[in-house]
Amino acid sequence: MASAEFWYEFASTYSYPAAMRVAELASARGVALVWRPFLLGPIFAAQGWRDSPFNIYPAKGRYMWRDLERTCAAAGLPFRRPAPFPQNSLLAARVALALEGETRAEFSRRVYAAEFGDGAPISDRAVIGGLIAGLGLDPQTILAEAASEANKAKLKAECARAAHIGIFGAPTLVTEDGEIFWGNDQLEFGLDWAAGRLLTPQQLSSSP
Amino acid sequence: MASAEFWYEFASTYSYPAAMRVAELASARGVALVWRPFLLGPIFAAQGWRDSPFNIYPAKGRYMWRDLERTCAAAGLPFRRPAPFPQNSLLAARVALALEGETRAEFSRRVYAAEFGDGAPISDRAVIGGLIAGLGLDPQTILAEAASEANKAKLKAECARAAHIGIFGAPTLVTEDGEIFWGNDQLEFGLDWAAGRLLTPQQLSSSP
Repeated sequence: MASAEFWYEFASTYSYPAAMRVAELASARGVALVWRPFLLGPIFAAQGWRDSPFNIYPAKGRYMWRDLERTCAAAGLPFRRPAPFPQNSLLAARVALALEGETRAEFSRRVYAAEFGDGAPISDRAVIGGLIAGLGLDPQTILAEAASEANKAKLKAECARAAHIGIFGAPTLVTEDGEIFWGNDQLEFGLDWAAGRLLTPQQLSSSP
Repeated sequence: MASAEFWYEFASTYSYPAAMRVAELASARGVALVWRPFLLGPIFAAQGWRDSPFNIYPAKGRYMWRDLERTCAAAGLPFRRPAPFPQNSLLAARVALALEGETRAEFSRRVYAAEFGDGAPISDRAVIGGLIAGLGLDPQTILAEAASEANKAKLKAECARAAHIGIFGAPTLVTEDGEIFWGNDQLEFGLDWAAGRLLTPQQLSSSP
């Protein structure tokens, strides 16, 4: 079965509609998904950004908020702008990484729904604890696992891996042959690629 | 008839597939297009960029070139990376603005085909003159019109208008109700909006 990695950052606006859409799009193409939460902060910092580019570049920021509103409306998703933006996503990323498989995916969707659907503060332990409890898991246990040194190191390694792959934004889809597809808009293209419906890189390189 | 403005910059990579696709996409939706060439340089300079962001941010640049190659292959468009990048687009923009209607559109497509399909230097008067001659027009006459003070002032006014609208990149589609849609990936969404197939801004503002 073809597979692809879905790299996402909980503070990232376009990761919200992508996270809500990706499972169905992948399933329709027979592509197995691996959910890989990471942090963009270190990648942004390495290129000199200490804030979201949407805050650094106001015209791009104004556009993004309007476009996100339109995009969510078109996808039938509720939208509420979280404040402050960006949210601190460290806690949510650690918890997501401490979970596995479908539980991680469902927790991640619920974090996005809380953050961008309800405007909830996702750096709040009570908010994250509530989402964990909603999955039928024990918040104290999961929060402790998330805060373990092993899990912290795992998240650091994921961030290093993202930078190594060449990821510079979120969401990003990575296919088995190492292609990367950036953005909510690119999900369909990337998953078509993963499913082998498009040219392979070899065919592409030899095309005119 | 619904209409939309297609704002494009000849140095812009993603404006290439967009320019080659947009007329057919608009026609299929019954949307009349106004082709508006402009320069991104002043807009980039205002936010501190003296070069293409694809050169300033290497990971983004590497991704863009690979994605452009894939995108062109998927659209059946030839692709050859121009050197240097970005090309100086001033001459091409002035000539495009000195032309009207369908002639402007066809000249613009031929500039993109020369630049990103053949890797030709579009700052070269002979290259641009050849494209003008290919349209059955007199290169000397059109190049003189393009270099007139009136036409130079017109291009400056277009750039100021772009900044005023909130344009920060190219290609950008602007609908009659003032919505902007950035990127080759957003053409379909923007033209659906222009054609009234999506929620109006009023409906969107009052949606939950």
